[in-house]
Amino acid sequence: MSNDDTSYRLYYWPGIQGRGEFVRLVLEDARASYVDVARLPEGEGGGAAAIVDALQRTDIGTPTYAPPILQDGELFMAQTATICRYVAQRHGLTPDAVEDRFRADALQLTIADFADEVHDTHHPIAGALYYEEQKPEAARRTSVFLEQRLPKYLGYFERVLAQNAASGGRWLIGSDCTYVDLSLFQVIAGLEYAFPNAMRALESEHSRVIELHARVADRPNIAAYLASDRRIPFNEHGIFRHYAELDADG
Amino acid sequence: MSNDDTSYRLYYWPGIQGRGEFVRLVLEDARASYVDVARLPEGEGGGAAAIVDALQRTDIGTPTYAPPILQDGELFMAQTATICRYVAQRHGLTPDAVEDRFRADALQLTIADFADEVHDTHHPIAGALYYEEQKPEAARRTSVFLEQRLPKYLGYFERVLAQNAASGGRWLIGSDCTYVDLSLFQVIAGLEYAFPNAMRALESEHSRVIELHARVADRPNIAAYLASDRRIPFNEHGIFRHYAELDADG
Repeated sequence: MSNDDTSYRLYYWPGIQGRGEFVRLVLEDARASYVDVARLPEGEGGGAAAIVDALQRTDIGTPTYAPPILQDGELFMAQTATICRYVAQRHGLTPDAVEDRFRADALQLTIADFADEVHDTHHPIAGALYYEEQKPEAARRTSVFLEQRLPKYLGYFERVLAQNAASGGRWLIGSDCTYVDLSLFQVIAGLEYAFPNAMRALESEHSRVIELHARVADRPNIAAYLASDRRIPFNEHGIFRHYAELDADG
Repeated sequence: MSNDDTSYRLYYWPGIQGRGEFVRLVLEDARASYVDVARLPEGEGGGAAAIVDALQRTDIGTPTYAPPILQDGELFMAQTATICRYVAQRHGLTPDAVEDRFRADALQLTIADFADEVHDTHHPIAGALYYEEQKPEAARRTSVFLEQRLPKYLGYFERVLAQNAASGGRWLIGSDCTYVDLSLFQVIAGLEYAFPNAMRALESEHSRVIELHARVADRPNIAAYLASDRRIPFNEHGIFRHYAELDADG
């Protein structure tokens, strides 16, 4: 991370991986220069106040709805999938063919839906309420998620990988790693943190997905990032939370 | 709608507007030639079986996860926002500047999040269960939605419109109508169907959003579409459902 004028500026809540992590992984894999603004001390323009300022700006063309927000010079952009696609396109982490770029975008939005459903296991009623205020509903939603939705999503991505493997590809799309692989890595990492028992039961049937997760973790820039203090540990404030009472029996 | 080889083919559940409607509005505004495949009789390759076939294809590069699916020649694409952007780009319904296209995509994903939250008011636990199987949870989720989320989203889009109006724009972004205006129209139309009381209470503070809805409805191709039998009426199987017990008091 450097702080010169050519750096991207990422605005995201400082204490969690959250949706910002999908953006961080693209920036890190690309070795792009970026400032993780809200993680700077408040005296240096950081903290949550920096995010609120960005949300309230009236001089940026289109206001942003929520973090993550990426600033690239005068351009401010919201929405995780939009930001990931933008950064990936500038740093060679998208497929080459135009049609494949649309296919990659559809994969990215499916990964985003998957992550949203993981979030809603512990927050089925409202993001503004604590988990403790919606525990019975969370238990009910999680049980359907683990029985139906999780196998459906994993099965889908397994099928995408198998089909691409049939044409010689080791990634979700095409012959090279793209941003959608980085994002699927993040969801699998999060699921293994949140639902270790449920994931252990599903691993053998979804070995291509599990191997993709390992292959992304081994990429030199990603491995260096994961070992650094720039990677915030998983915790019970983000998308992927470990509540033992929600996981499957071990 | 015509049926020649140059037509788009849209695969979406035949009995509801659902997420397919966002795609239909772009196709209709563009006067693009398309076949609404699953609405054809089964004997002509239609019905829900056509969707299942499309989902199971193994010869389309990347499998699709769920409808809507758009076929353009050999390209099959899933995800509503991806499809809308693709069609819009081909028919002059995106902004011209590259930066504005990313801003438009972020707006579209925020509209998609908004629609998802409307859906979850009646399905907070699982899409696979009936509303009647999750009524207490739906009542709780809807109350937070109407009190907090609905005003927040409407306020955001009001602010986007006000800011663009300050530079002379009558639409969400730039000087011309784009696909994101069509999509916001659809969410407002759906909300007025689902929550007439709640919307009436919010209209006066969000007059730019309400006027945008009217302006889109008046576009000649949209007006013709809305008056045709190609527009499926709102009903209690789609995203926007009217359950009187969930709406605010009148």
